[in-house]
Amino acid sequence: MSAETDRGNHGALRARIGRIIHDSDTPAGRHFDVWLIWAILFSIGLVMLESVDAVEVRFGTALRVMEWIITILFSIEYVLRLWTSKRPLRWAVSFYGVIDLLAVLPTYASVFLPGAQAVVVLRGLRLLRIFRILKLFNYVHEARVLLVSLAASRHRIIVFMLAVLALVTVFGTVMYLVEPKEAGFTSIPRSIYWAIVTLTTVGYGDIAPVTGLGQVIASGIMILGYAIIAIPTGIVTVEMARQSRNARNVVCGQCGAKDHSDDARYCRACGGAL
Amino acid sequence: MSAETDRGNHGALRARIGRIIHDSDTPAGRHFDVWLIWAILFSIGLVMLESVDAVEVRFGTALRVMEWIITILFSIEYVLRLWTSKRPLRWAVSFYGVIDLLAVLPTYASVFLPGAQAVVVLRGLRLLRIFRILKLFNYVHEARVLLVSLAASRHRIIVFMLAVLALVTVFGTVMYLVEPKEAGFTSIPRSIYWAIVTLTTVGYGDIAPVTGLGQVIASGIMILGYAIIAIPTGIVTVEMARQSRNARNVVCGQCGAKDHSDDARYCRACGGAL
Amino acid sequence: MSAETDRGNHGALRARIGRIIHDSDTPAGRHFDVWLIWAILFSIGLVMLESVDAVEVRFGTALRVMEWIITILFSIEYVLRLWTSKRPLRWAVSFYGVIDLLAVLPTYASVFLPGAQAVVVLRGLRLLRIFRILKLFNYVHEARVLLVSLAASRHRIIVFMLAVLALVTVFGTVMYLVEPKEAGFTSIPRSIYWAIVTLTTVGYGDIAPVTGLGQVIASGIMILGYAIIAIPTGIVTVEMARQSRNARNVVCGQCGAKDHSDDARYCRACGGAL
Amino acid sequence: MSAETDRGNHGALRARIGRIIHDSDTPAGRHFDVWLIWAILFSIGLVMLESVDAVEVRFGTALRVMEWIITILFSIEYVLRLWTSKRPLRWAVSFYGVIDLLAVLPTYASVFLPGAQAVVVLRGLRLLRIFRILKLFNYVHEARVLLVSLAASRHRIIVFMLAVLALVTVFGTVMYLVEPKEAGFTSIPRSIYWAIVTLTTVGYGDIAPVTGLGQVIASGIMILGYAIIAIPTGIVTVEMARQSRNARNVVCGQCGAKDHSDDARYCRACGGAL
Repeated sequence: MSAETDRGNHGALRARIGRIIHDSDTPAGRHFDVWLIWAILFSIGLVMLESVDAVEVRFGTALRVMEWIITILFSIEYVLRLWTSKRPLRWAVSFYGVIDLLAVLPTYASVFLPGAQAVVVLRGLRLLRIFRILKLFNYVHEARVLLVSLAASRHRIIVFMLAVLALVTVFGTVMYLVEPKEAGFTSIPRSIYWAIVTLTTVGYGDIAPVTGLGQVIASGIMILGYAIIAIPTGIVTVEMARQSRNARNVVCGQCGAKDHSDDARYCRACGGAL
Repeated sequence: MSAETDRGNHGALRARIGRIIHDSDTPAGRHFDVWLIWAILFSIGLVMLESVDAVEVRFGTALRVMEWIITILFSIEYVLRLWTSKRPLRWAVSFYGVIDLLAVLPTYASVFLPGAQAVVVLRGLRLLRIFRILKLFNYVHEARVLLVSLAASRHRIIVFMLAVLALVTVFGTVMYLVEPKEAGFTSIPRSIYWAIVTLTTVGYGDIAPVTGLGQVIASGIMILGYAIIAIPTGIVTVEMARQSRNARNVVCGQCGAKDHSDDARYCRACGGAL
Repeated sequence: MSAETDRGNHGALRARIGRIIHDSDTPAGRHFDVWLIWAILFSIGLVMLESVDAVEVRFGTALRVMEWIITILFSIEYVLRLWTSKRPLRWAVSFYGVIDLLAVLPTYASVFLPGAQAVVVLRGLRLLRIFRILKLFNYVHEARVLLVSLAASRHRIIVFMLAVLALVTVFGTVMYLVEPKEAGFTSIPRSIYWAIVTLTTVGYGDIAPVTGLGQVIASGIMILGYAIIAIPTGIVTVEMARQSRNARNVVCGQCGAKDHSDDARYCRACGGAL
Repeated sequence: MSAETDRGNHGALRARIGRIIHDSDTPAGRHFDVWLIWAILFSIGLVMLESVDAVEVRFGTALRVMEWIITILFSIEYVLRLWTSKRPLRWAVSFYGVIDLLAVLPTYASVFLPGAQAVVVLRGLRLLRIFRILKLFNYVHEARVLLVSLAASRHRIIVFMLAVLALVTVFGTVMYLVEPKEAGFTSIPRSIYWAIVTLTTVGYGDIAPVTGLGQVIASGIMILGYAIIAIPTGIVTVEMARQSRNARNVVCGQCGAKDHSDDARYCRACGGAL
């Protein structure tokens, strides 16, 4: 019986920890989420600081200590997630399971792999935990509205981007033929890279046309890029306006249709009064 | 009779191949289109890779072989298109007929023209086949909506672009007079090129004002460019909103209400069937 | 009597030429306008080409000859405008009167002023005639719609620009204090110039922050500039949408009020049926 | 009694000066505001000019004199504000109280602190008085409309900015791993700075990718940045359109129609007086 009680306690503890870790509804769960976000941000900050030579030289030891603390905390979290998961194996190979593992492995690996550069590269994997934070965006209403607008206009945006890719391919090749290699247009892919830099109005200036004809074509690409930015803007604005108009969110009592316009008095699907 | 049957078979074959090549309605036709797109993209990729020196040195022979394969395939396609065309000569001198010919000629020409540079330039012509892919955009509903919006607002966009051209001409000339030649403002066309680079917010930095007055004028151009990008954006957004609203321009037969949503079956004002 | 007839003929000729020059309603007047535009564009092209050293060296004499032809034509036009004007003196000191004079003077001045640079500077004045072309934009319906939208939202755009100016002043001064002079932040006005280059997303790169703190502040300015471009865009788009909605252009038969909304059935000013 | 009258006069004077300084309703108060704005702009101009070496060398003494004049005027204003304030101590430690003190202190401090650089830094504090001008924006109707639109969409803009920050963190780290340190990607924070420069389409070019893979990723960031600028634009435009529509939220008492234009006096649907 002692073993049974033990298992029962064990099960109750597991269920309780599981609720804290997986749910955001309870106060404890919400506290856990907030602390997790701060821990992830802190660990990301650590990775960043380590990459700065001046900081690494002065505070190297302190960074190393904090890194081990955060790694051990994340390891405990990983074990608890695995333990409280209903299907531990399935979770371990899921997207977030792999990310959570990759976040702790590099520090342990650093004991065996003394190569400095390799460890930093691996440590960068910890950054993937940012997706855990991004996942929380889904719970934010405002983020959902933006994502719905983007999702609803994704077809048009993809078509627009394909057209942009076709344009920069043509313009890049033309510039490769027109400009001398000395100006930086050493190959077609590089010229296409330049065309993207120009069309999106980024304009690094690491590659820039030097011939008259090249500058005329470049001017055309710039004005084109300046004008066609109106297209994604228009797509998203119209979609957001539609979302906003439908925000009233009246559901028809008879047929359950949603998304009626602001001033609708009758359901557009069944004709019943709203 | 054998000759007649032969001609009959010949005609039937021609008609069948013609349907595959020209129509997108049949499964075979759609398969042909998809394969053609991949072949064109592959051939464009080949041209790009050949222009990269590092790739050319290592995989030159392999690229050459693949190029001959794709050229022979495109040649067969060209002959079949010519053969199945109702008016072969007219097609041969049409836009797509010329492009399809230009896509295969350079490789054959490379046998006789040993000059490396000349061949690469000619091979770039194969890129023109991208227009065949762009043509397919017309069949995509989303692309049509975008093109209709652009077409409907083309007058305003042209007027806007003319105004932009007038502005950069004036600003370019002023900067040519204000800035020293050493800063890169060596001629009026070059100064206009700089003004376009600045107004469109590309900003390479290959030419940049160095005098105080020049920087004040440049600041003015930048803020202007930052503000007037609102104009094409506004034009296209309003036009897209109109297209979206008119997407289903149904007027209620009973009460005359307009602006029903896309999927409305009953009037939102009086509840009558649309 | 011969003198009187002469004066009569003289007056009739003057009136006829005046109609051709000043009106755009008659076929002759329209032809004159079109020819004038081409002549101005041609003269602007001449000024541009002369500023290019390579062209000047090779085609200097030809350019000089064409310049004298265009100057003499513009001089004749100037004299005719002065002669056919109802108040010649008033026209001569008006905006377009002065511009038309400045367009011809430099060439005559070049006979007496042999300094090459000075002449080019003066010749740039001919570019001012571009305002004559811009003036024609007023007759184009599309341009008027754009100008009406801009004019209607000018107060908001001015407020926005003042806010932008205040922002770049603050950010420029902060960067002047934060960044070393070696990075290009040699004075506050120059730092403000950098802030404008950054906020408008032009980004030349001639001046760029080198310290960590400077780059953090710069990142803030960039994201701010990236976000607040939404403001002028929003202003102009909303205004254009309003213009477009009011385009129906029904005038109330009772009170003459305009700008009714699309679906208005009664006048908003007097309540009468439209 | 003389002391009492004195106190009475004193109190009346204090009240009168207080009204001039604090209120903008009376003509005197409005005059004071306008003069104050000019004085602040003038003092900001002085600080700017002093930072320009060429100006400082030539007009140093004149600038110094004007600076003392403006400092004494601001000191008098400070004392008067303190005196007429209902709770002098509370005002002295308030935001504007501290700013007004910081605006005058540096000049007095310059007598004791001879270090040129330190004084310039301190003098930059005077720029903080620009907030007094910005405060006046609140009184301008157009600015309020813009601020209301921004305030109403602040949640969405913050979510958007957080998403942008997450994106540049991921992209910056990836580029740090991909690109060599020689190209400028010396640390993760610096690579994130580059990602911000690229995503916002500023594109200085002080750091630019040199490897093929790096340029492919950079191209992705650019196209992303080019497309997602549509999001803040869409947010603000939709919000402004809503503000504009609600500008006069009158509902017709007879038929319930909404969305009347700004200056409507009669319902567009039933013709009834609003």
